[in-house]
This record gives sequence, structure tokens and C-alpha cells, in this order.
Amino acid sequence: MELSEIGEFGFIRRVSRGCLIRPEGVERAIGDDAAAFVVPPEELTLVTTDLLVERVHFLRKATTPFNLGHKAMAVNLSDIAAMGGTPREAFVSTAIPAGCPVEYLDELYDGMKSLAARHGVNILGGDTTGSAADLILNVTVIGHVRRDEILYRSGAKPGDAVCVTGPVGDSRAGLHFVLEGAEGLDAGMQKLFEAHILPQPHLEEGRFLAATGAATAALDVSDGLSSDLMHIVEESGVGIRVEAERIPISAELHEFCGRLGKDPIRFALSGGEDYVLAVTVKAGRIDEVSQRFAARFGRPLYRVGTVTGSGRLELLAPDGRIEAVGPTGWDHFGAHDL
Amino acid sequence: MELSEIGEFGFIRRVSRGCLIRPEGVERAIGDDAAAFVVPPEELTLVTTDLLVERVHFLRKATTPFNLGHKAMAVNLSDIAAMGGTPREAFVSTAIPAGCPVEYLDELYDGMKSLAARHGVNILGGDTTGSAADLILNVTVIGHVRRDEILYRSGAKPGDAVCVTGPVGDSRAGLHFVLEGAEGLDAGMQKLFEAHILPQPHLEEGRFLAATGAATAALDVSDGLSSDLMHIVEESGVGIRVEAERIPISAELHEFCGRLGKDPIRFALSGGEDYVLAVTVKAGRIDEVSQRFAARFGRPLYRVGTVTGSGRLELLAPDGRIEAVGPTGWDHFGAHDL
Repeated sequence: MELSEIGEFGFIRRVSRGCLIRPEGVERAIGDDAAAFVVPPEELTLVTTDLLVERVHFLRKATTPFNLGHKAMAVNLSDIAAMGGTPREAFVSTAIPAGCPVEYLDELYDGMKSLAARHGVNILGGDTTGSAADLILNVTVIGHVRRDEILYRSGAKPGDAVCVTGPVGDSRAGLHFVLEGAEGLDAGMQKLFEAHILPQPHLEEGRFLAATGAATAALDVSDGLSSDLMHIVEESGVGIRVEAERIPISAELHEFCGRLGKDPIRFALSGGEDYVLAVTVKAGRIDEVSQRFAARFGRPLYRVGTVTGSGRLELLAPDGRIEAVGPTGWDHFGAHDL
Repeated sequence: MELSEIGEFGFIRRVSRGCLIRPEGVERAIGDDAAAFVVPPEELTLVTTDLLVERVHFLRKATTPFNLGHKAMAVNLSDIAAMGGTPREAFVSTAIPAGCPVEYLDELYDGMKSLAARHGVNILGGDTTGSAADLILNVTVIGHVRRDEILYRSGAKPGDAVCVTGPVGDSRAGLHFVLEGAEGLDAGMQKLFEAHILPQPHLEEGRFLAATGAATAALDVSDGLSSDLMHIVEESGVGIRVEAERIPISAELHEFCGRLGKDPIRFALSGGEDYVLAVTVKAGRIDEVSQRFAARFGRPLYRVGTVTGSGRLELLAPDGRIEAVGPTGWDHFGAHDL
């Protein structure tokens, strides 16, 4: 069906179904000049926004609309997770090129609504318009967090443990199948593909870590573990030493890299779009927090290194060498030539 | 200068200057996973978002980057005005095509920052990315309003006066000079051009009307007075009768329509992008509110009609005929053939 058959307002009515899944506190959802809602008293409001542009961030042919919608929502929820917050309201702007069928857009919104609903997030508004060329998606997510639990990038102290909440590098390996085609995409490799296509925001992990009071800094791994840890180095005014052998590499990534003659550590450090959290934890609390994390989530809180006073990001390589990283990331590790 | 010379983070640092103009209550601005701030206790949070797409909403050649930035911010502030609210924080997503010079983007952000600062609004974050074809701008604005002062589209009651806070139709006439070129754009016509290019959100007017307690419904005139009043008809479950002769038409619009043999009432009803407010006011308060409005703003609160129980939007034409309007707007008035 063409969008012109139902018009802008018909389309908005159509996609609005299933957007308001937590009506408490919502005074106005889609349909007025602005949405209106109450926020939890005494808490800080968190806001993040991400723009996805066709031919820059995705290819319409290479992903399903459901998965595209999922990812557009996931990357924003992941930012709220990285602050230790709870996401509550989302706003979706879509610029739609001519000829994009309504059924495609239905699935796109289903992907967003499905992930939003799973985390108790309303879609309360947005903007819908035409586009001369590319499909454009902008999602804004509003969340909340107690002031004494918020996790910034700036709180790391020398001696803190540096941890990640899941394996890194899988997403970059999954991207291989997007760019190069599905050859070799067997059941084992499917997990890598899904890590790239259907990333799961670590919201419960972020809330858990924030509530411990032991986490000192956090962010989500979107640009690649090395680039992202550089943000903690810069914002906290510290150094970080990562031990290569401690970086969690999935069995599937080992398998993938074995087949293609690639280095899994490079994928882990420079890949990006993992959407796990990198977090620093007070040294005196790391054992207890790790045990509770493992009991709660059924997998380890992976300790990958230590906060130092060096002012640099360093990698302790498996052969004992220490490599320093420049401000542009792990370029000497061949970040752009995985 | 090319964007590649300073990189994404260099660009963010560059445009961040002048974004935080009201630091009270802001815990984190640009530079973390999300912005973090306190909201006024006891007030409702308002959120609106608008997407501007090159070749759909604007032509890069036909406006200056400063004016484009101004308009992207203005249309969002206008939505907050229509709720009776005070805007406080803005978030800007930009997708930038290759070859778009940094100086162009500086001016674009200056246009946003200038209008935001004039209304005490911080720019607290956003997203910056590439674009394969068009320049894309998405602005999200967050504001606040007391629960007992918020203005919805749904509160109008039969007998209420229907008013607008400024002349309508000027913006559509100004669009003529964008589409057809600057021929005839003399000093008088410049006001029409500016009404289109540099719309001023009626934030103080919205706050004033909300605080009176006499306003029952409001929205901003963006699609055209007739289409927008239809929203009040539908959301409030009322009718509205507009008296054509009471619609405020500027001297410049009369002059413009005289020159081109056009009907100014059609421009006023169907033009759109005026960004004045349309508001319904309790009959028993309209005289007092109008007097105070005029004293405060130095121009009338223009009463253009009355809320009825008809369930229809009607126009009382100058010749005494009453014309009814269908759900698609004033099509029989030739909305698409101004």
C-alpha cells in the first residue's frame, strides 16, 4: 500500500497502536502539539537521541524493517543503560522516501514498539514527513535515574577495575555478513549476525551496576572498546590498562576469525556497535559485585583491566608488550583494516 | 573548511560553544551518553520533535543557514508555546552531506543557538552524522508547564471565543518569494518574506494565555488556520464558526494579493506556517483577557469566531454565505491553488 492512500494522519493513527504501553503518568501521548507527562519526583531526567540515515548507517536491502526499527530503538536505550537509568518515553521522527510501502513502515514501527514495550517504554510522539532520497529515522529517548546512582564517564579513579558486561567484537564480525553476503552464515555464525542486527541494550545490567554504588564510570560500547575507553580516560582524567587476554571473546568470534584468518582481539577492540557496557568498579567492591552480577545474569562481569594514573590507554598484549594508544584510537592495530 | 579536517568530535566541540546558556539544574550537557538535568517539581514535562529534510522542507540555495537553524528551532518552540509551556532544553540531530562546509554548519547552529538563547533554552545534546544526499535536521525540545495551566486541543466548549495571536497568511505569501524568486521583494514585501523565513514562536503569548485560566484550548497555526482549527473541532468534539471579515490580514498581505490578483482570505485560511497561536477563550472572560493581551503585547488578541455545537468547521463569508469544511480542509476554497 502506498502512503498516499492513507495520508499522514491515517499513517499516524495506524502506527500509534501499541505505542502507549505504560499509561500511568502520561497526560498526553500522540495527537497534541507536544506530549505531556509526569516524571518521577527527585530523579534526574536523562535524554539521548540518535539519527539513522540510509546509505550511511544501514542499507534497506541488507536488513529487515523490523530489525532496523529494533536497532534504532536499541542504540538509544543503550545510552540510557550507560547512565544507569530507566528509559520511559520515546519519540520517533521518520522521513519516508516516495514508494516506501506502508507495510514496510508497519514492520519498522513494530520493531521499535516491540523492544520499547519489553523495557516499559512508551512511544509518545514524533514527526512523520517525506524524504527526497533516503529513509531517515531519529529516535529520542527520555529516562530517569536517582541522582546518587547516575553513572557518568568522569568518575573513574586509579585502582578501579575496568569491566564489560558481555563479549565484544561479535557485532563487527556480524557486519561482515551484511557487507559481504550470507556465505558462511551457518547456525553458529548466526549469533554474530544477530549481535550486529538485533543488539540488546544492557538496561538491567546498567541498573544493577548503578544500584550497587560501586560503579564509578560507565558508557556503552558503540564506537569500539578502545575508542570508548578513551572517553573514560579523557573525561575521568585517568589512564586505563587493558589486558588483551582478559577481553571476552565469544566462541563464535574465535571460530569466525579462525576461518577468515583474522585477529579476534582486533575485532574486540576496534569493532564497535557491541552495545555492552564498559564500567569501572571500586577495587574494594569488585569481587562482591562480580559474584552478585554472575548470580543475577548467569554470566560473568568480565574484568578486562585496571584504571591507572598514566593518563593513557594501554594494552597489555599476550606477549607481554605494552602498547599505548593515541588520541585517534587503536590505529596502529589496524582499526580500519579488520 | 571541510568537516573531515576537524572530525566529528572537533565539530561537536566547535558547535558546543554557546549551547549551555542556563546552567542551573543541568548536571550533564553535551559529552556523555545522555544529558542529565532536573525538571521543576510538580510540573508536567512537555516534549516535541520536528524533522526538517532538504528538498522537502527547504532548499539549501533558497535560505541562509542561519535562517534555516532559526526555523528548525522556532517550529519546536512554537509547539511548546501552544501547550502554554516554557521551553528549557533542546537536542539537535544533524545529518551532513559530503562537501557541506564547516562554516555553513557554524551559521546553522548560530541560528538555532540565537533563538534558543533568546528564550532561555539550552542545547544539551544531539547526534551528528553523515548523509548520503540531503541535509537533515531533527530538533527535540523539552519544556514544562503547570498541570493546571496546560493547554490541550481538547478543551474548547460551545460559546468560547476563537482567537489568533497574530495575522495569518503572511508566511504563505512570503513563500512565494522563495519559490518564484525575489522579483517584487521590496521593503514592504520583506515583512512577508521574514514571516516565512524567520517565524517567531509566540511563547510569551502562550504563557500569558495559559496563566489567565481563561483559555480552554490552543494549538499553533502550522498547517493553515482551517486545517488547524479542524484539530480543535475533532479533539474537543465541538464546532467552530469563523467570520471571514474578522480574520487578521496584514496590510502587506493585502498589498501582495492586490498586486497578484489573489484572495487574502484564502492565504489566511490555507497558507500555513504562520506559527501564531489559535486559542479558544471562555466567553465570560474574553473582553478582560483581550484588554490585558493588548496592553501586554501592543496588538490585539484577534477574535476570529466562536465555538459552536455544530460539530463542523464553518466559514461565515463576507457575503453572508456559510460554507462548511470537509475533513480534508478547505479544499473547495482551493487550498492547493493559492
